[in-house]
Amino acid sequence: MNALIEQIRSFLGPQAVLTGADVTARSDSWPPTGGCQAMAIARPATTAEVSEVLRLCHAAGQPVVTHGGLTGLVHGAKAGPDELVLSLERMNRMESVDAVNRTVVVEAGVPLQKVHEAAEQAGLLFPLDLGARGSATIGGNISTNAGGNSVIRYGMTRDQVLGVEAVLADGTVISALQDVIKNNTGYDLKQLFIGSEGTLGVVTRAVLRLRPLPRSRNTALVALASYDKVTEFLQTIDAALGGTLSAFEVLWNDFYHLIVGSGERHAPPLGSEHPFYVLLEATGGDDERDRERFEGALEEAFDRQLLADAVIAQSSQQRSDLWAIRDDVEAMAAKLNPPMTFDISLSIPRLDDYVHEVRQALTSMWPAARMVTFGHLGDGNIHLVLTVGSREPNDVRRVEKIVYETLGRHGGVISAEHGIGLEKKAYLGHSRSPQEIALMKTLKSALDPRNILNPGKVI
Amino acid sequence: MNALIEQIRSFLGPQAVLTGADVTARSDSWPPTGGCQAMAIARPATTAEVSEVLRLCHAAGQPVVTHGGLTGLVHGAKAGPDELVLSLERMNRMESVDAVNRTVVVEAGVPLQKVHEAAEQAGLLFPLDLGARGSATIGGNISTNAGGNSVIRYGMTRDQVLGVEAVLADGTVISALQDVIKNNTGYDLKQLFIGSEGTLGVVTRAVLRLRPLPRSRNTALVALASYDKVTEFLQTIDAALGGTLSAFEVLWNDFYHLIVGSGERHAPPLGSEHPFYVLLEATGGDDERDRERFEGALEEAFDRQLLADAVIAQSSQQRSDLWAIRDDVEAMAAKLNPPMTFDISLSIPRLDDYVHEVRQALTSMWPAARMVTFGHLGDGNIHLVLTVGSREPNDVRRVEKIVYETLGRHGGVISAEHGIGLEKKAYLGHSRSPQEIALMKTLKSALDPRNILNPGKVI
Repeated sequence: MNALIEQIRSFLGPQAVLTGADVTARSDSWPPTGGCQAMAIARPATTAEVSEVLRLCHAAGQPVVTHGGLTGLVHGAKAGPDELVLSLERMNRMESVDAVNRTVVVEAGVPLQKVHEAAEQAGLLFPLDLGARGSATIGGNISTNAGGNSVIRYGMTRDQVLGVEAVLADGTVISALQDVIKNNTGYDLKQLFIGSEGTLGVVTRAVLRLRPLPRSRNTALVALASYDKVTEFLQTIDAALGGTLSAFEVLWNDFYHLIVGSGERHAPPLGSEHPFYVLLEATGGDDERDRERFEGALEEAFDRQLLADAVIAQSSQQRSDLWAIRDDVEAMAAKLNPPMTFDISLSIPRLDDYVHEVRQALTSMWPAARMVTFGHLGDGNIHLVLTVGSREPNDVRRVEKIVYETLGRHGGVISAEHGIGLEKKAYLGHSRSPQEIALMKTLKSALDPRNILNPGKVI
Repeated sequence: MNALIEQIRSFLGPQAVLTGADVTARSDSWPPTGGCQAMAIARPATTAEVSEVLRLCHAAGQPVVTHGGLTGLVHGAKAGPDELVLSLERMNRMESVDAVNRTVVVEAGVPLQKVHEAAEQAGLLFPLDLGARGSATIGGNISTNAGGNSVIRYGMTRDQVLGVEAVLADGTVISALQDVIKNNTGYDLKQLFIGSEGTLGVVTRAVLRLRPLPRSRNTALVALASYDKVTEFLQTIDAALGGTLSAFEVLWNDFYHLIVGSGERHAPPLGSEHPFYVLLEATGGDDERDRERFEGALEEAFDRQLLADAVIAQSSQQRSDLWAIRDDVEAMAAKLNPPMTFDISLSIPRLDDYVHEVRQALTSMWPAARMVTFGHLGDGNIHLVLTVGSREPNDVRRVEKIVYETLGRHGGVISAEHGIGLEKKAYLGHSRSPQEIALMKTLKSALDPRNILNPGKVI
C-alpha cells in the first residue's frame, strides 16, 4: 500500500479505510455490480476528517472520486486504479429539524428518504423525490442537482438548498450554512457545488428548505388528440389550478401503447388509440375545495375541447395504479432490448417536432428501431427510451449522434437532470459553446488547480 | 480626453459616449441628485459593442462601472473620476415572448415594468415586483438578485432567470441563453452573474421564466397577540392555502402605530393596540373557491386562537388601502428623521429576540432613539428603519455596529435583498467567514484578473 493511504489510515483509523477485496466487492456505478477498481476507499466521519484527507491528497496530487449513494446514471462516480474513493457513508446524521424556520440541517451521506421521514415527523414536506430515494444521498442529490417528478411545483435540488458546507480541493472548509431564503451578502458560493458533480468541492453538510405538507392530492390521466392540445392544456390547467399543479407527465402514444396496450401488467384506464396522455396531479391545503377545483379545471378543459377522455383517481389505490404506468421502467427495459435512455430538455413548443425528427432518422438507419417518449413535459424535459437491436459501441455512437445533433440544432440541452459524468462528456459541445466550456475550465482551475477532484468528469 | 475614450467613441459613434457636463448632469446612486464623477459614459447598443468596449478597457486596465436603472440602495453603481460608466440604457429591446414555453427574451436595459406588460399581454405573469419597477432594469435586477413582495411564492430574481448572456472582463461573450427549466449540462454559469453586482461580468440579455396569470387575489390584515402566534399562523395558513400564499408581511406594533396610529394618512383598519399585524395575500386560479378557501383558512386560525382580529379586503380599493399602510415609506421617513434603513435576514424563530436586543442596545446609547420593524417575515427577511437623531458618520458607524454585530451573533445575514455594494462592504465579515470571502476573491481574480469590473465593490 502506498504511503499516502498509510497516512490517511493512521489519521482516520484502520476501519475507515478499505483496500483490496473490500474495494472490489463494491460498485462505482448503477446498477451495482461490484468491481470498483479504486486504490482504496476512505470513509471519513466528520467534515474535519474530509478536510484532512483532501489536504493530504492535494499535497500529493492524488485524484479523489467522491461517492454518495451511487445511483447516478452517467458514470459520474467511476473510479480508476489510481484514484482514491472518498465515501461519505459515515456522515449520515440528521442534525436538526427546525419546524418553525422550516429547515433541516443534514450531513451529506443521509439518504433522501430519511429527510422525507424527518420532515413528515415535523408535519412538513421535503419535496425532492425520485425512484432511488432509499439509496441516493443528499450529498449526491446536491452534487448532481437532482430533479424528479415535482420540479414543476418546487424546482430542482438547487431550489431546495439554502446553505451548504463544502470542502475545497486543498482542504479549506467553506461553511456557507445560512438557513435563510434571502441572502445577498456577496457571491452565492453554494451554487458552485450544486450540480458540479464533485469536481469543484466535496459537499459535507447542507441546510434544506422544507414546505407545508399537502393536505390534498388529486390525480388524473387524460387523453389528447394532438401536441398542440397538450401544450394548450398545460397552460389552461396550470392557470386554473392557481399554482398547485405538482406533476404534468406526458406519455406519447408509443409509450402508453407499449406499457398498457397488451393489458399484461396494467388494466388500461383509457383506450390506447389516443396520440397523447397526460398524468397530472395537484396538491393543496383543503381536501374538499381542492377536489371541486380540480374537477372544475378538467371540465373547463373539456369545454375548450382540449381533452378526448379523462379518468380521475377515486382512491389512493387508483392513484398508485396511474403512477405505476408512468413508472414501469421494467416493462420498458424488457420490451426495448437492449435499451438506450436519453434525458433531454428543449423549449416546449419544439419538443414534438424534435421527437419526430429523431424517430425518422433512427428508422431510416435501423428499420426495426423502436422508441418510446415520455416525461416531465411541464418542465420541458422528456426521456427517450429506444432500441436499435444492438449496443455495439459503434451503434451507440451513431444513435447518440442522431439524438444530440438533432437536439443541438433545436437549441436543446443534452442533460436535463442526469448530469454529464463520463457518459455525456463527449457531447457537451452540442449544448454549451466553446466560451462556456472555457469558463467552466477557468472555474475548475481556480478551485482545483491540481485537478484532483473527480478528474476527467464533466469537462 | 484620453486616448481610450477616443477609441471607444470612434467605435461606438459620437452620440454613444457622454463626457463633461453630460456626465455630471447624471446620477450614480439613489435618490438621483446628479453629480456623477465618471470620466465618461459609454452607451453601447449591442452585445458586440459591449464586448468591444470591455476588450479595450481590459487591454488598458480601465475600471468600468455598469449602470442599469440606478435604483440600488447600497451605492453599488458609484463611479469615481478614473472610472468609465458602461450604461446599458440603449439595450432596451424586448426580443420575444413565447406564450407556450412561457419565457421571454429581453435585453438588460429593459425596465422591469415593460416585462410585466409584455407578460400580461401574453396572458402571463412575471412575478418579480418592487417599488422601482418603472426605472429598475432587468440587468440591474439580475446583477443584484432583487427580491420584493412575492418571494415567498415565486422566489428571488435568481429563480426567474433561465438563461443569461454576459460579457466577461476581457470581452468574451458567454451566451448561456437556454430557455429550459432543467439544464444539468455542466456548471450553471449564469449563477456567477446573478447577485454579483457587476463584479464578475456584464449581463447583456436574459431568458426569463413567466408564470400563469393569477385569476384571483385575496388580501387580509390580521392582528396577533405575540410573536409565537405570528410564526404559528404562518405555518397554519401556508398549509391551509396549499402553496398559494403570495405575501406574508409582518408589521411590528411600532410600525403600525407610527403609520396608522394618528389616523392622519390612513383610516385604521384595525385597532393599534395589538403587538403584531400581518398583511397576507393569496393568489389562485378560481375566484369563488379561492375566496371560500381563504376565509376558511382564516377561520381555522381563529379557531386555533391565533388571531385577535382580522379584516378581509372586500374590494380592490380596500386591498390598495391595506398595501398603502405597508408601503408608506414617506410617512416613515418624515417621522424618523434622519432615517437609517437596514435589510436583514435571520432564522424566523430568532427574529423577534433579535429586534428586542437591537432596540435595547440603541436606546441604552441614544435614549430618544426610535425604531420601526416590518417586512417579508415569510422569507425571514425584515427591514429596520430607525433614527438616533443624527447621521454623523460616527453615529452611523455605531448604529451599524449594533445592528450587524447583534445579527452576526444570531447567525443572520446583513443583506437579504439589497446587496453589499460599497455601503455594507465593511460588514461583510459579520455574515461570511474568511474562507468564504477568500473564495469570492478567488472567483473575482479568475474571472476579472485585472480587476476592472466595478472594482472595490462587494469584496
